[in-house]
Amino acid sequence: MRAAGADACLITSNVNLFYAAGQVLMGYLYISASHPPLVFVRRPTGLSGEHIVYVRKPEEMAEILTQRGFPHPACLMLEGDTITHGEWLRYGAVFSGAELINGTPAIRRARSVKTEYEINLMRQSGKIHAAVYGKIPALYRVGMTDVELSVEIEREMRLAGSYGIFRVFGQSMEIFMGSVLVGDNAGEPSPYDFGLGGKGQHPSIPVGANYTVLREGMSVMVDMGGNFTGYLTDMTRTYSIGKLSEKACFAHQTALSIQDELVKMARPGVIGEEMYDKALEMAKKSGLSDCFMGVRQQARFVGHGVGVEINEPPVLGARSKTPLEAGMILAIEPKFVIEGTGAVGIENTFLVTKSGGEKLTLMDDQIIEIGC
Amino acid sequence: MRAAGADACLITSNVNLFYAAGQVLMGYLYISASHPPLVFVRRPTGLSGEHIVYVRKPEEMAEILTQRGFPHPACLMLEGDTITHGEWLRYGAVFSGAELINGTPAIRRARSVKTEYEINLMRQSGKIHAAVYGKIPALYRVGMTDVELSVEIEREMRLAGSYGIFRVFGQSMEIFMGSVLVGDNAGEPSPYDFGLGGKGQHPSIPVGANYTVLREGMSVMVDMGGNFTGYLTDMTRTYSIGKLSEKACFAHQTALSIQDELVKMARPGVIGEEMYDKALEMAKKSGLSDCFMGVRQQARFVGHGVGVEINEPPVLGARSKTPLEAGMILAIEPKFVIEGTGAVGIENTFLVTKSGGEKLTLMDDQIIEIGC
Repeated sequence: MRAAGADACLITSNVNLFYAAGQVLMGYLYISASHPPLVFVRRPTGLSGEHIVYVRKPEEMAEILTQRGFPHPACLMLEGDTITHGEWLRYGAVFSGAELINGTPAIRRARSVKTEYEINLMRQSGKIHAAVYGKIPALYRVGMTDVELSVEIEREMRLAGSYGIFRVFGQSMEIFMGSVLVGDNAGEPSPYDFGLGGKGQHPSIPVGANYTVLREGMSVMVDMGGNFTGYLTDMTRTYSIGKLSEKACFAHQTALSIQDELVKMARPGVIGEEMYDKALEMAKKSGLSDCFMGVRQQARFVGHGVGVEINEPPVLGARSKTPLEAGMILAIEPKFVIEGTGAVGIENTFLVTKSGGEKLTLMDDQIIEIGC
Repeated sequence: MRAAGADACLITSNVNLFYAAGQVLMGYLYISASHPPLVFVRRPTGLSGEHIVYVRKPEEMAEILTQRGFPHPACLMLEGDTITHGEWLRYGAVFSGAELINGTPAIRRARSVKTEYEINLMRQSGKIHAAVYGKIPALYRVGMTDVELSVEIEREMRLAGSYGIFRVFGQSMEIFMGSVLVGDNAGEPSPYDFGLGGKGQHPSIPVGANYTVLREGMSVMVDMGGNFTGYLTDMTRTYSIGKLSEKACFAHQTALSIQDELVKMARPGVIGEEMYDKALEMAKKSGLSDCFMGVRQQARFVGHGVGVEINEPPVLGARSKTPLEAGMILAIEPKFVIEGTGAVGIENTFLVTKSGGEKLTLMDDQIIEIGC
C-alpha cells in the first residue's frame, strides 16, 4: 500500500474480505497506513470487537473515521479490477477529494505468497481432494454419461466437506464444481480460460461435460476444484474405460515428464514464462505440439497460482515475467487431447520451495483404468 | 438505449451476452443505434455468421467498426454495475472521446419483462424443479445432517438436468445450489441478501446448512435454485420431521395466506412496495411480525424478480417503486422463523398477468412430513 503511495485501502469484495478479515461480510475493511484497521459491517448482525463498527451504508464511513481521528485519505486504494465501476464511483464519493488507485494487482500479488497457516489449509485440502479421487473408480457404471459420472463425483466431494462453489477472478471462467471431459468432447473449444474446454450442457455455461456416453477406449479426465478449507486445491487425474491407445498412453507419459521437469523448476526466481517454454519445447520434442493444451483451441499456459480463488497469479504462460517466490502455490497441468480418445495428462497443486515443487495433492499420477 | 441518449451499447458480461446473444462468449456485443449488431469474439474458435468478427483483444474493435462504416459513438452505454472499474476504463479507452454512461439499470429493466420464449423456458424449469422437490421425502435418513440432505437433493437436481451454478447480480449473494435450513440454524444471520440466512459450513461462504442433525419437531426448509433451461426458477418448500408445533403450523398457514394475497396483487401497475407492505400488515395482524423473514436479522423484502439471474428487478420490498408489468416473473417468498422449530413458509415463481400471478412451480404448498 505504502509502495503504491496510498495512505489507505478499502476492501469490499467478498473474496478479499475473507482473505483479510477471515470471513465474508457485507461490509468494508478500511486499512489505514497510520491507524489500526476498522471493519464497517452492514451484515450479519451480532458481531462484536474493538475494530468492528456497524453502519447502514458506506456513506457513513467518512464521518466515523473523522470522529475517530483518522486523517482523510489523500490517496485511497480500491479494488479496481474486482469491484464494479458503480461501486468504484460510490466509494470514491465517500472519500471525495482522495485520489483513487487500483489496488487489485497489489492485493493479488500479496495473496499469491502463502503463509504457513494458509499452506496448512491447502495441504489439508489436497489430502481430502486426493481421497475423493480415489473413490472415482467405484462410481463408474456401464453406459453412464459424463454428466452422470460428474454428479456422483460432486456428491462425494460434497460429502467429504466441499463447500461447492469455487471463486474465480474475473469473468474469464465460470464453472460448476469442475469438469469431467470424456472422449472427443475434450477437444471442444470453450469461451472460458481453462486449460481445456468441453462443450458443456448448455450455451449458458459452455464448458465441461456434454452428455457423452462413456465407452471403451475413451479417456475420462476429472478436473474438479477442491474447496474443503476456504483455500482451493486443483487436481486432475486421467481415468480410462479399458485400455487407451498407444498414442494416448505416450502423451500421458509425456505430460508426466513435463510435470517432473516443471516441478524441478518450481523454485524462487524462476519465471512462469520459462516454465511454459520448457513445457512447449518438451511437447514439441515428443511430436505432440498440435494437441498440447487442446486441439482446435489451445490454452497458452501450463499452470497457474491457486488459493482463495482458483486463478491466482502467477500464470505459467507466455509473457508471464513474475519470478516465483517460496510459499507460492501452483497448479501445474500439462494436458494433451488425442482425437478419438479424449484428454490425457495431469494436474497437481504444488508448493514452491527452494528445492522445487512440493506436491500437495498426494495421489499416483498414472492413468487409472476404471472400466471393462 | 435511445431513451438514455446513447448511440451504441457494448455488452461484455457473461450473463448479458447469454441474454442478448444466446450464448456465453469471451467477446463483446456491439449494438449500434444505426447499424446491425456485431459480435466481436475472442473465444471459442469455430463460430461463424454474418455478424461475427474474431478479434484478439478489445482494442481492435474501433478500427473494424470504422472500416465497416459505423460512426464513432458520441455516447456509449457500458454495463457500469456489472463490469469492473478496470474493464470500464479499458472499453472506454477503445472508444476514446465517447461519453460513457451506465447501462446496467436499463438492461436489467429490459430483462425483467420476459418474452413468450423466455416464459416457456421458465415454465419448463418450474416443472422439473417441482418434480425434484417431490422426491425429497424419499431422500431422508434418520440421523442425517442438513448438509447430507442437501447433497442428496443437489444430486437429484443435477440428475434432472440442473447446470448447477446460478448467476447472481452483484456480490450481495453467493451460494452453492441453494439452501437447506433446519431447526434454529434458520435464524442465524448471514451477510448475504437472501430471504433467510443460516450459518453455513464455513466463514468463506456463511449461508445455509451448518451440519445440524435433523430431529423430530424440526422444520426443514428447502430453497434451491432451479437451473434447467438457462432461466432460473426459485422455489421453497417446508418439510417437517414428524409434526411441527402449533405455532409453526399457524405461521406456515399465515405465509400461505400472505402468498395468496400477493398473488392476487401481482398484476400490471401494482408496485413492489405495496405488496411488501401488505405482507408486513398481514404478518403483524397474525402477531408474527417479530419472526417474519428472520428473527435477529430480518430481510426487508418478500420477493424478487428472477430470470437469467436469481435476483432480478423488481424487488418486492420497501422503497420499491417500479410498477409491475405483464410478463415479469416474480419469486414470492413469505417465510417465518420459529425458534425451536426452524423456518416455515413458502416460495413459488409466478408470472405477472392481468388477472394476477400464475404459478410456474406447480406443487402443493402445505408442509410435507418426511420423518417418523
